[in-house]
Amino acid sequence: MGKGLLPLLLVQKFGGSSVATAHHIAEVARKIQQAVEAGHQVVVVASAMGDSTDHLVDLAGQLVAIPSGREMDALLSTGELVTVALLAMTLEQNGVPARSFSGGQAGIKTSYDFGRARIEAIDPGPLRRALAAGITPVVAGFQGVTDSGDVATLGRGGSDLTAIALAGALKADRCEIYSDVAGVYTADPRIVPNATPLSSLSYDEMLELASQGAQVLQTQAVEYAKGHQVVIHARSTFLDEPGTQIEAEPVIAVKPAVTAVALNRHVAKIGLLGVPDYPGVAAYLFSSLANHGINVELVIQSLSHDKLNDIAFTISEHDVPKAKPIVQECLIHLKGQSVIIDDKVAKVSAVGSGMLGRPGVAATLFQALADAGINIQMIGTSEIKISCIVDRSDADRALEHIHHAFGLDGTEDVIEDD
Amino acid sequence: MGKGLLPLLLVQKFGGSSVATAHHIAEVARKIQQAVEAGHQVVVVASAMGDSTDHLVDLAGQLVAIPSGREMDALLSTGELVTVALLAMTLEQNGVPARSFSGGQAGIKTSYDFGRARIEAIDPGPLRRALAAGITPVVAGFQGVTDSGDVATLGRGGSDLTAIALAGALKADRCEIYSDVAGVYTADPRIVPNATPLSSLSYDEMLELASQGAQVLQTQAVEYAKGHQVVIHARSTFLDEPGTQIEAEPVIAVKPAVTAVALNRHVAKIGLLGVPDYPGVAAYLFSSLANHGINVELVIQSLSHDKLNDIAFTISEHDVPKAKPIVQECLIHLKGQSVIIDDKVAKVSAVGSGMLGRPGVAATLFQALADAGINIQMIGTSEIKISCIVDRSDADRALEHIHHAFGLDGTEDVIEDD
Repeated sequence: MGKGLLPLLLVQKFGGSSVATAHHIAEVARKIQQAVEAGHQVVVVASAMGDSTDHLVDLAGQLVAIPSGREMDALLSTGELVTVALLAMTLEQNGVPARSFSGGQAGIKTSYDFGRARIEAIDPGPLRRALAAGITPVVAGFQGVTDSGDVATLGRGGSDLTAIALAGALKADRCEIYSDVAGVYTADPRIVPNATPLSSLSYDEMLELASQGAQVLQTQAVEYAKGHQVVIHARSTFLDEPGTQIEAEPVIAVKPAVTAVALNRHVAKIGLLGVPDYPGVAAYLFSSLANHGINVELVIQSLSHDKLNDIAFTISEHDVPKAKPIVQECLIHLKGQSVIIDDKVAKVSAVGSGMLGRPGVAATLFQALADAGINIQMIGTSEIKISCIVDRSDADRALEHIHHAFGLDGTEDVIEDD
Repeated sequence: MGKGLLPLLLVQKFGGSSVATAHHIAEVARKIQQAVEAGHQVVVVASAMGDSTDHLVDLAGQLVAIPSGREMDALLSTGELVTVALLAMTLEQNGVPARSFSGGQAGIKTSYDFGRARIEAIDPGPLRRALAAGITPVVAGFQGVTDSGDVATLGRGGSDLTAIALAGALKADRCEIYSDVAGVYTADPRIVPNATPLSSLSYDEMLELASQGAQVLQTQAVEYAKGHQVVIHARSTFLDEPGTQIEAEPVIAVKPAVTAVALNRHVAKIGLLGVPDYPGVAAYLFSSLANHGINVELVIQSLSHDKLNDIAFTISEHDVPKAKPIVQECLIHLKGQSVIIDDKVAKVSAVGSGMLGRPGVAATLFQALADAGINIQMIGTSEIKISCIVDRSDADRALEHIHHAFGLDGTEDVIEDD
């Protein structure tokens, strides 16, 4: 690391599984020390140890049904404080001057939305002063303070956001996100064994790969990185793998049409059948769902017969219980004929900024599924993504066939297949 | 509680064993609620849950030999933060508006002596504003922040000091210290079964009863209470006992000569024998010990023979390993003949502001020990205390005999004994 390279300003973020025990923390301290000894300036961001946050949630659950947001945040923020103090004292003992910072001490100001606060401002002064004094700051992730000095948390996975926001505020050269995942793959390796690691992809591609992203990076953090042009390097804490660089538009010799494929199993399809066709039908339905916080994804509206419409859309499987009564109410209000709810579907997606202005990508995908005898129930596209709703029992096969059709299989396996 | 009484401003402090589990915290919340519903304003101070501080110390011990003081304090302060968040959310759920405060949020400014910081100033503003808004503040004990915003802890037992200092700053009517001990007794009930609870005693008496005090109240906290005239009420959290009031000079009809007796088993006696008698001998010896942070208690200097002195003194048993080389060095420097170290002694004390100007108290004590056949090795006195060093194997018997000689035995037992 850094041999012969220019010294950089790096933000290094370590997730909960990377600091799960004292032994893990000692390992992470060694990793940080390597970067410091290579001449880099490092700002560390750390999560709570392993399942310590779950332990705190459990304690609160023993006492109250619906905890006060402010107090829950005051409680949960202590997990990260424990990690950063332990990490800083370990670095210090190893001869690396270090200092722990709570979110507040690190100058992170948040909104008052306890439990899912937004970062509103960062005063880079405290960390800059530490760096200038040759001290490695170790910052508690997932938290900041409101204007009144209350501790507020950024929601689960918020440590990624802390790291990327600090990298933006400090104009760091790179934000390294360390976790137990070795980066982003062309597909989830647990489903597609031929999946290969990606050395780089764009923010937009990463955002479209949300189902994979959830394991590697918090989506809000990627959006923030895109907005502030923070280069992310996602890699494994304990394996020496190259990892994945996420940046505005990676420079790649020949850009493939599809960079990676993704699968979301937790999708449900809802259909309102035989709804009279008059203006405002869709608006009434989708605003009813939106008012209850239910996010709608793919939508298909088709004229069936006698001026009656069928409207089909997908939602997250977890929202089905909440959506059912709303959809029933809409059916009555809109004088429709029937409702069908299928919570046994899945969404497969092909993502790649290389598909921009390249025709035939959708055709290749549909042909791959047709060849495999998999029925496409719904289709949705964005500029850099094509998604298909398929039966959940076909999902894994669908993903493998698309992965293969776009030449994403690992080299050795491609040879075998040919 | 408080029926028909004027509404008071109370500080209520709950120790670690009182908040050891979620169940305990729920009980403590009910206790606080009772006081609030009786019309009192209550400021709560809480310690870390049970042995959670030990768990944090253990984690640090797995990583570093000598942790940085700043980082150790950042680590240990999280224990109290957990308790106060849990307690505040429980109160809120029960309909008692409440808010948790870290030491810093509560306006507690400390010195930079990490691990044993002094409280340098308290801004009562934040807690006063909460009280004025009808909110019960729940303050993390044991901690404050330095001028630079670093978290610093007050040392073990420091939550007592937090409570008493807040009571002083807020001019509270009373500081209630709740623990698993039902107050102060005429002697440690585990040693003297006839010991009876004291309804009141003076700050000075409490300070002299340090060996008992350690279980009931941190000594520094009592000194602070004395300096700021804070009335302390030490009582049991879960037993409905009257407890002990500690104040300037309790009003008692007939003040007994001795209020209580105390035993300190952790004493060692050191003798330097045959030291030539010239000016500065004692100064050299005791400043050498003081420079190494060793506190000397009783001192006896006696002319033995041929202008040679014997100097004997007591120290805490825990300081013996540190004291040994220093005393050996002094022996050589002072040209003395030999050193004896006896770490098998104990100190028994009789304490009472009633002994002021009342002759014969010492005689009664010495006679009681003589009647029991117990040899007195050293004697030390203050205005309101008489202490004797005895063989540690005689200590319990010595305490019982003194307790009996001053008529402190519980009524029923006194009748039996007569």
